[in-house]
Amino acid sequence: MKPLSWQVAAAVAVGLALALETLPQVLRWLWGGRRRPRREVLFFPSQVTCTEALLQQAPRAEPSASTTSSAGCLCSLPHGESALSRLLRALLAARVSLELCLFAFSSPQLGRAVQLLHQRGVRVRVVTDCDYMALNGSQIGLLRKAGIQVRHDQDLGYMHHKFAIVDKKVLITGSLNWTTQAIQNNRENVLIMEDEEYVRLFLEEFERIWEEFNPTKYTFFPQEKKSQ
Amino acid sequence: MKPLSWQVAAAVAVGLALALETLPQVLRWLWGGRRRPRREVLFFPSQVTCTEALLQQAPRAEPSASTTSSAGCLCSLPHGESALSRLLRALLAARVSLELCLFAFSSPQLGRAVQLLHQRGVRVRVVTDCDYMALNGSQIGLLRKAGIQVRHDQDLGYMHHKFAIVDKKVLITGSLNWTTQAIQNNRENVLIMEDEEYVRLFLEEFERIWEEFNPTKYTFFPQEKKSQ
Repeated sequence: MKPLSWQVAAAVAVGLALALETLPQVLRWLWGGRRRPRREVLFFPSQVTCTEALLQQAPRAEPSASTTSSAGCLCSLPHGESALSRLLRALLAARVSLELCLFAFSSPQLGRAVQLLHQRGVRVRVVTDCDYMALNGSQIGLLRKAGIQVRHDQDLGYMHHKFAIVDKKVLITGSLNWTTQAIQNNRENVLIMEDEEYVRLFLEEFERIWEEFNPTKYTFFPQEKKSQ
Repeated sequence: MKPLSWQVAAAVAVGLALALETLPQVLRWLWGGRRRPRREVLFFPSQVTCTEALLQQAPRAEPSASTTSSAGCLCSLPHGESALSRLLRALLAARVSLELCLFAFSSPQLGRAVQLLHQRGVRVRVVTDCDYMALNGSQIGLLRKAGIQVRHDQDLGYMHHKFAIVDKKVLITGSLNWTTQAIQNNRENVLIMEDEEYVRLFLEEFERIWEEFNPTKYTFFPQEKKSQ
């Protein structure tokens, strides 16, 4: 066999090379053939920046970092990135659906973003807490006037979630109520996670609440009913 | 070359086999050779269950699901699993360190768990909001009396985070304030994530706040100082 040894060695090498060449494909298959899923944490308070460029974009234009600074807005606010602008961008990426489950919602910028998505044909559904939806500056009434579906609890307990699901692919959740006070003054966190498992669990929670808060189940004047 | 073909084929096969045999090792190396990291979501309100078994365990015993139901407690509450018992178990797994960054902390069970960890020698550090630490039922005073380090803000904005970091390996974060009202009545979420990247980011946030809220920097009687 001695005279064959170099051929054998070469053939083994060919075999190794063949197998190793398939390795990246095997790994891509194992990882689902995708780019790295989005994982981001935003910490607040956010620097106060101009967000006009994001909110005045042409319908369905892709929001990107470069469009923020090139907006040509002449206001005196800084025009760079901030935690709020990154949160807005994550929301404005929606193309099909947006589920919102929010204890308090009074930020004008976030309200405009949600209305913009509704105008673009994104299916927006909002769940909120009954005690906070009529507070001064709440965006809930404006969203309703714009034709967006809103449902609320009728419990003594709070609907205290603060999460959003973008296109059933990205979960946005954390401690942040969508108020200017929280955005500009509080220590807060928001996770942005492109993660099938977490999205599925939060979407199930949303659908449970959405069905439970169906207006056909609302009780009006419970005191009067009891006394009848 | 024809007479060599079977040897070549065999050698290619050997090469393929050699390469494929190393594949599992390569994959283990790529995945860090570990079990699947912990990923869990707890939704509240939690069923009210008896948590005595978890909180009366011998020091440093491993808290496990089986010990909960076998406690022999005779109280009338259910003795099964609940969102609160799972949160307690995640905390009681701490062996070295526990960082807490909590807007409001009044749950007696969670307070007992933190004191238990302190007694077991776990290094506990607590950051909280100045407006909420002296409220009725707050656990903060009890933790301080037990010798646990607590720091707080002096801002108008709220320290609104609600997260814990166990042994610098597991992040527990969400919408839940650690109060009985929130645990038993509110719609809330808590993520339990064994995830290096998220733990690192939240630990950095904790250390930033811990240093900023160093008592040597506290201002007392700012009004009087101004008028002097």
